[in-house]
Amino acid sequence: MATDLRLDPNELPLLTDLYELTMAASYFALGFNDDACFSMSSRRLPAGRGFLVAAGLERLLELVEEFRFDSSMLEYLDSLKLFDPRFLDFLGRLRFTGEIFALAEGTIFFGQEPIVEVRAPLIEGQLLETIVINQAGMASLIASKAARCTVVAKGRGLVDFGLRRSQGADAGLIAARSSYLAGFIGSSNVLAGKRYGIPLYGTMAHSYVMAHDREAEAFAHFVRSFPQISTLLVDTYDTERGVENAARVGLELKKQGHKLQAIRLDSGDLLDLSIKARRILDRHGLTETKIFASGNLDEYRVRDLVEAGAPIDDLGVGTAMVVSADAPSLDVAYKLTEYKGTPRMKTSQHKLSLPGRKQVFRAAGADGSFYADLIGLADEKEAEVAREFAPAPDRTSMLLLRRFGGGSRIGPSPTLAESREECLRSLAALAPRYKRLEKPDSYPVGLTAALAAMVERGKLEAPKRQD
Amino acid sequence: MATDLRLDPNELPLLTDLYELTMAASYFALGFNDDACFSMSSRRLPAGRGFLVAAGLERLLELVEEFRFDSSMLEYLDSLKLFDPRFLDFLGRLRFTGEIFALAEGTIFFGQEPIVEVRAPLIEGQLLETIVINQAGMASLIASKAARCTVVAKGRGLVDFGLRRSQGADAGLIAARSSYLAGFIGSSNVLAGKRYGIPLYGTMAHSYVMAHDREAEAFAHFVRSFPQISTLLVDTYDTERGVENAARVGLELKKQGHKLQAIRLDSGDLLDLSIKARRILDRHGLTETKIFASGNLDEYRVRDLVEAGAPIDDLGVGTAMVVSADAPSLDVAYKLTEYKGTPRMKTSQHKLSLPGRKQVFRAAGADGSFYADLIGLADEKEAEVAREFAPAPDRTSMLLLRRFGGGSRIGPSPTLAESREECLRSLAALAPRYKRLEKPDSYPVGLTAALAAMVERGKLEAPKRQD
Repeated sequence: MATDLRLDPNELPLLTDLYELTMAASYFALGFNDDACFSMSSRRLPAGRGFLVAAGLERLLELVEEFRFDSSMLEYLDSLKLFDPRFLDFLGRLRFTGEIFALAEGTIFFGQEPIVEVRAPLIEGQLLETIVINQAGMASLIASKAARCTVVAKGRGLVDFGLRRSQGADAGLIAARSSYLAGFIGSSNVLAGKRYGIPLYGTMAHSYVMAHDREAEAFAHFVRSFPQISTLLVDTYDTERGVENAARVGLELKKQGHKLQAIRLDSGDLLDLSIKARRILDRHGLTETKIFASGNLDEYRVRDLVEAGAPIDDLGVGTAMVVSADAPSLDVAYKLTEYKGTPRMKTSQHKLSLPGRKQVFRAAGADGSFYADLIGLADEKEAEVAREFAPAPDRTSMLLLRRFGGGSRIGPSPTLAESREECLRSLAALAPRYKRLEKPDSYPVGLTAALAAMVERGKLEAPKRQD
Repeated sequence: MATDLRLDPNELPLLTDLYELTMAASYFALGFNDDACFSMSSRRLPAGRGFLVAAGLERLLELVEEFRFDSSMLEYLDSLKLFDPRFLDFLGRLRFTGEIFALAEGTIFFGQEPIVEVRAPLIEGQLLETIVINQAGMASLIASKAARCTVVAKGRGLVDFGLRRSQGADAGLIAARSSYLAGFIGSSNVLAGKRYGIPLYGTMAHSYVMAHDREAEAFAHFVRSFPQISTLLVDTYDTERGVENAARVGLELKKQGHKLQAIRLDSGDLLDLSIKARRILDRHGLTETKIFASGNLDEYRVRDLVEAGAPIDDLGVGTAMVVSADAPSLDVAYKLTEYKGTPRMKTSQHKLSLPGRKQVFRAAGADGSFYADLIGLADEKEAEVAREFAPAPDRTSMLLLRRFGGGSRIGPSPTLAESREECLRSLAALAPRYKRLEKPDSYPVGLTAALAAMVERGKLEAPKRQD
């Protein structure tokens, strides 16, 4: 029997909300399947956040390429006694024939800006809703959280240690990939290493020390097994005594022509303990042995340690990053913005959606730093929108790229390493006031005159839709 | 090309932290593979929580049954240039030969209590660590959050609407299953319906209304397609006008011998709008048409609506439940507690672990309500531990059950429906003061005299381990 954790690609179209299928069935019965545009965006940034980082889009494109209902899925849907056989037959033949526009992975974005736009026959666009939000929302959420850690780490290496506390298997893979994209140097997640080529990091657990009668013996054994990746965990019992024991092993190792790579602190006052550990190591001449720290770290604690000058070389960041503890979800929606050539717009309280097929225009100065965005219509010209920015930009770019059409992905797909470089460049090109951990300034995002006018028309038209 | 979302069972052993494999390799080289006991528990309850609910254990047992390293995994590990070929050969032949003791799904538990105990050769037990925490931790986290909603809903139906905001595909499946286990009546997640037989619920999205030129037409179309599951979403534009439009469709439906099942409110002041909607529906004689509410609901908002007497029949709970927004992770650890017949214990700051092979004893009164637990040693007798409870229990039960041995699961595995009934019974048998949403009382969990003595010995011995 296949385990429940198995997620076959041919089951993915069922990873959806029932209403997507009932709506699709109703559209099918009504003959509603003209061209539509759906737009996914985050209505606002999570409290205290100044920016977001796009991720999860390459995987999404893969999913869309393989999107099809097979016979076992159709049999299950039939068993629900909700669907007409003609609709199920239609589903069996359905392939995604539309276009997808998306931000490049690693792109910094802000509230209200479309991350993904799906332009497709109504039913196809509708059926992608749940999986688009689930995948791109989660991946972007974690990339955004990880990027905050990257910003404050100021060059110290950050490693994803969060797999065990990730919300399930898929979340662990997404977190490893998203955090690497956002500047982490690697992950402990072996499957993520295999799939994405992410560098793997690992030390030892307390159980290794505890399986030995004496800590010193555990240390000696571990460096014998792995002289090339010898990081010793020193806080199973008393931490300072643990560092002393590690230092003695380091001296032995030195005599044999190796070096003790690092010690790892995983609890207690990391600033105080790292200073003491550094002193102990240096006193033994182990100045090249690094200090690795972990244990309930998040961007705030990383910043505090860095600002206090803690002699910590690399840090393992786990739970708080992989679940985005302070903001474990993005307020992401996927809205119908055009149908049959007519803009569509939701006007209920506090949940206004932006109509039409859109584009995001970004203004940058001569040094490449960007300072304002305008959300506009897809058919607006870059040069004309550029005139709406003040001050006038040296360069304007359009962020939504056509990435799917004619039944397949449109390349070239950047490698993960390329997207990571691009993300790091973008982070560097964003002014510090938007990157502050607390009370960041609000990055200016406006609407082009053309989109603003369309919104006003939509507001006037809404009451008529209820007559 | 298989999509990245594919999670084959034969990849699962790689869904682990690198250090599990390096420790295993070191143990292998050292010939350390005697019997060990690992215990997973939550060190403490999340802030403000009074209890937790066990989940994810049946799936975990399935995973362990299928746990094996195949050649593609071994090739990847070999490519890391960390592992000796003899170790990789050993991994290729490795099967889980140990025993697993676990709480039954749906069991209420508390901080420090073992959820899972793995008694196996050291390497086998070590290699399960990451996946055990990842799976059982997440599933229990969500079951616990959902159970809080169940407690305050006082019989109103709760439906999981969270798939899109779940942290990835696996999280969506886990959340659907865990919330159903904890008393929800169903989910919108179609794949969860297929896999677990969970009842499916669905209404319509705003896009359905927006794809029509007029709301009234959308409503008429939807009930024509699905007269048997006609729930109309009334808040795309002005909500009260939406209810009026739905009522008119309801009257038409009535003439045809059907009834409008429900209207759905998804934004705004749900108490106020539900009262207004009820009045409008009743005025049209649609007294049987239910009101379904959703939109940023969590246990606090559900409680407030119920306590205020909002005329809401069923509620869709999404984001806050599926990510456990107020506590998106459990402080779960998986610790070595015995090796080679000797108890093991971690003594570093604030992270004391409980040594030995353990059992959880629960004291209940004559009416079945339980009032205190003792964590004891696995070989303690129920009747003797019973004497350590004050007041004396009418019944004492042992919560950790032997569920895996001899290479396979030990049945009978309860069905999900049975576990759900058991969970609801347990929730009813827990005193209200522990179930309060805010500042719940702390449920009494102690150690048996025998375990307490073992802990004291462990504290005395720890310094010797560092000599």
